[in-house]
Amino acid sequence: MPARPIELKGRPLAGGQLPAVCAPLVGRTRSALLAEAAAVAAKAPDLIEWRVDFFEGIADTPAVVQLAGELRQAAGGIPILFTRRSRREGGEPIPLDEPQVLALYCAVCASGSVDAVDYEAANDPALLAELREAAHRHGLALFLSFHDVNGTPPLGELVQRFEQAEKLGADVAKVAVMPRSERDVLVLLEATLQASQKLRVPVVSMSMAGLGALTRVCGGAFGSALTFAVGGAPSAPGQLPIEDVRAGLALLRRAAG
Amino acid sequence: MPARPIELKGRPLAGGQLPAVCAPLVGRTRSALLAEAAAVAAKAPDLIEWRVDFFEGIADTPAVVQLAGELRQAAGGIPILFTRRSRREGGEPIPLDEPQVLALYCAVCASGSVDAVDYEAANDPALLAELREAAHRHGLALFLSFHDVNGTPPLGELVQRFEQAEKLGADVAKVAVMPRSERDVLVLLEATLQASQKLRVPVVSMSMAGLGALTRVCGGAFGSALTFAVGGAPSAPGQLPIEDVRAGLALLRRAAG
Repeated sequence: MPARPIELKGRPLAGGQLPAVCAPLVGRTRSALLAEAAAVAAKAPDLIEWRVDFFEGIADTPAVVQLAGELRQAAGGIPILFTRRSRREGGEPIPLDEPQVLALYCAVCASGSVDAVDYEAANDPALLAELREAAHRHGLALFLSFHDVNGTPPLGELVQRFEQAEKLGADVAKVAVMPRSERDVLVLLEATLQASQKLRVPVVSMSMAGLGALTRVCGGAFGSALTFAVGGAPSAPGQLPIEDVRAGLALLRRAAG
Repeated sequence: MPARPIELKGRPLAGGQLPAVCAPLVGRTRSALLAEAAAVAAKAPDLIEWRVDFFEGIADTPAVVQLAGELRQAAGGIPILFTRRSRREGGEPIPLDEPQVLALYCAVCASGSVDAVDYEAANDPALLAELREAAHRHGLALFLSFHDVNGTPPLGELVQRFEQAEKLGADVAKVAVMPRSERDVLVLLEATLQASQKLRVPVVSMSMAGLGALTRVCGGAFGSALTFAVGGAPSAPGQLPIEDVRAGLALLRRAAG
């Protein structure tokens, strides 16, 4: 198994086991997010993702930075991934243009309240370069991601998406796609396996919705370093409760001997 | 999902859900087998397989036939699959030549104490034809199987193995292979998917050992109609406890919505 775990500040997530488990926060208000963070932290995921595109105060940079600090406290030592998912790739509509989003990311990077950021690889290369510089200057890991919420591209294109993320300077390359058939699920797993063997950085993948849900448990066997599971509320179709994912992973580990 | 369930005497196993769960019996003596059958039946698999190559009395046809009747009673209504796995395909050494094995199968078919028989597709075509006739005359389903305990043949060959079983008159086509890499596991799942879409009869598959163990839970999603799980003791490497398989299948069913 050449696949490698995600490291944040020099420490491998989940003690280096694949996959680590990440639970999203999708609250729309400060109070909802603080309650959600406490409830999610109690379930002890390896990573917590704040999906800031759900937050109604996203246009108020000081409020976001302050809330990041409060979520850091609520997370009780669990590292935090900061993510604005774009509308095009499955996120919520927000009242910011892309340079404003980038400025928000940079302010959050500088706050010291998060450990990693996720940004779509399809964004303007100049903005990507700026974020990479800001993330690394502050010791954060950069996830570069690709999502196809409508279908599953062919195998070669999927592998290229992982490779492109690495070329763009990602510390973690993430690909999430929607299956239209059982074959699409196998294509995503095969692409994950190939990418995990080719890339120097960890890869993360999932096939979404009910058809792809098994990849959220089995993906680690094919090199995916992280799986997203529901602590409070799902952020994408097909996410399973964290208890189910942990039970499934434990079962597979016993089985693999 | 074009895959179809196994039907025994007109009734689909597991109410038609994929995959059904089969637990093997591997006792060496009558008393061990009767105890094992009672313990396994208490775990309510959908099918019980008697691996008669483990039975030290295999050369005594009347003893085998009588014991089949006793196992029928112990199984409490759970249907029984009768299997002599050959040494070449992963079974135990036995003191019978192949025509003697065939005579044993025919006597068991006539006894009315089992519901299906498994025989390797690589056997002499004349013996295969004889068994097919005997099985069908007595209303039993015929599993024709292929096992590679050393490796995983290429995708095209795997699909041909399923197709060959159907051409030879199988009611169920089974392929079990040993993975040497994560890729082999995906190849087996892809072959299962293709075969389940091409064949008119149900297909059954698994990738063995720890590397392939996930196929024992996920195989149904790619068309495998049956998974083997441990009620008492395993009959092949990588089999999981029946409780784990049932928990994993329940998890995937909730996830698939």
